[in-house]
Amino acid sequence: MIKVIAFDADDTLWVNEPFFREAEEKFASLMEDFMPRHSSIKELYLTEIENLGLYGYGIKGFMLSMIQTALKISDHKINAKAIDMLLTIGYDMMQKPVELLPGVEEVLEELKQEYRLVMATKGDLVDQEKKLKKSGLDHYFHHIEIMSDKKEADFAKLIRHLDISPEEFLMLGNSLKSDVLPVLALGGHAIHIPFHITWEHETVADEVVHANFNKTDNISKVVEMIRGM
Amino acid sequence: MIKVIAFDADDTLWVNEPFFREAEEKFASLMEDFMPRHSSIKELYLTEIENLGLYGYGIKGFMLSMIQTALKISDHKINAKAIDMLLTIGYDMMQKPVELLPGVEEVLEELKQEYRLVMATKGDLVDQEKKLKKSGLDHYFHHIEIMSDKKEADFAKLIRHLDISPEEFLMLGNSLKSDVLPVLALGGHAIHIPFHITWEHETVADEVVHANFNKTDNISKVVEMIRGM
Repeated sequence: MIKVIAFDADDTLWVNEPFFREAEEKFASLMEDFMPRHSSIKELYLTEIENLGLYGYGIKGFMLSMIQTALKISDHKINAKAIDMLLTIGYDMMQKPVELLPGVEEVLEELKQEYRLVMATKGDLVDQEKKLKKSGLDHYFHHIEIMSDKKEADFAKLIRHLDISPEEFLMLGNSLKSDVLPVLALGGHAIHIPFHITWEHETVADEVVHANFNKTDNISKVVEMIRGM
Repeated sequence: MIKVIAFDADDTLWVNEPFFREAEEKFASLMEDFMPRHSSIKELYLTEIENLGLYGYGIKGFMLSMIQTALKISDHKINAKAIDMLLTIGYDMMQKPVELLPGVEEVLEELKQEYRLVMATKGDLVDQEKKLKKSGLDHYFHHIEIMSDKKEADFAKLIRHLDISPEEFLMLGNSLKSDVLPVLALGGHAIHIPFHITWEHETVADEVVHANFNKTDNISKVVEMIRGM
């Protein structure tokens, strides 16, 4: 019944969110002269959310939001050297090697025998293409979709593009908000694989109960799960 | 023989490069205490090229390059207010209305009766999606391809994806380097529609002479040109 399995990338195939948390800590250290750590991280988050419509997801937007927040927090008293250090935080994030999550490669190897595999990720085009290349996983995927957002309409477009019906589509990912809820709403299937850190903006309050929904803490278990569907 | 006609977007469908030129002039004004205008614009260009692999094309990368260049040119003497003004230059660019080039809509209307139309643009995912939406042109296109680069391999992937052979593909655009040469190299067709301003990085020195190549100063002439092919 399932024809296409789509994988989220960040924090589903490889580590991502912890690098943003690390970057926030470095940002907070640079801001300590002006504001306590917890408050500057909160200010940064608010700036990011405010800019999301304008910048979209990704490291470049994060860098610009760090600079904007630093100017605001310091009431324009921050010096140019500190701004330079904010740029360096971003460069360092961009140049990190890709760290695959355990079990990912085996699962892709197994599933690609029976299904068309797709990568469906939200984020910056250049960031995500680069990570995919560094990951060495590109040959597993029949199609790569880098989306500016993961709302219902975005998945509807992807499913149409794949020339299947929603019931033939299964999405796997770590975000209930972005990978699970919109797909279920369209009549597709979803498996939630939580990651130990979730960006505040991606969290949802409620438990999901749905006939097409499954959950596992371990990606290695999805093969069996899918075969039983 | 032609089945799919692909249109470049920036400076082919709508005005783009002049906004970057305007932004550079504003940047140069802010830098005048540290460096003559011409030199600071040149420094900015060098930073942009250096960052292209890391940032890709688009306004966010341009903003980050402006900040980096300002820090360098001023030897970290630039103040936070000026950095804030650099951010504002970028925001303003992002919020510009889309200005369609003359004749574009009529040409799309005419050609969509007989051909599958595609938009094939290089740039930032969020920037380009937003401009397409603002342009009101999205309904003309069967497929939108936002590419991180426009090299031969990128076009080969697009053509495979469209399920046609290169001889059935025609690309229209203002850049010889990005819209014409890679497509001709693959065996496709290309029409060059020069725009009055071209980014230095997109210029090529040589004249193009090729059986599958045409050129016109006026997009309104392409309909007749294509029918005669």
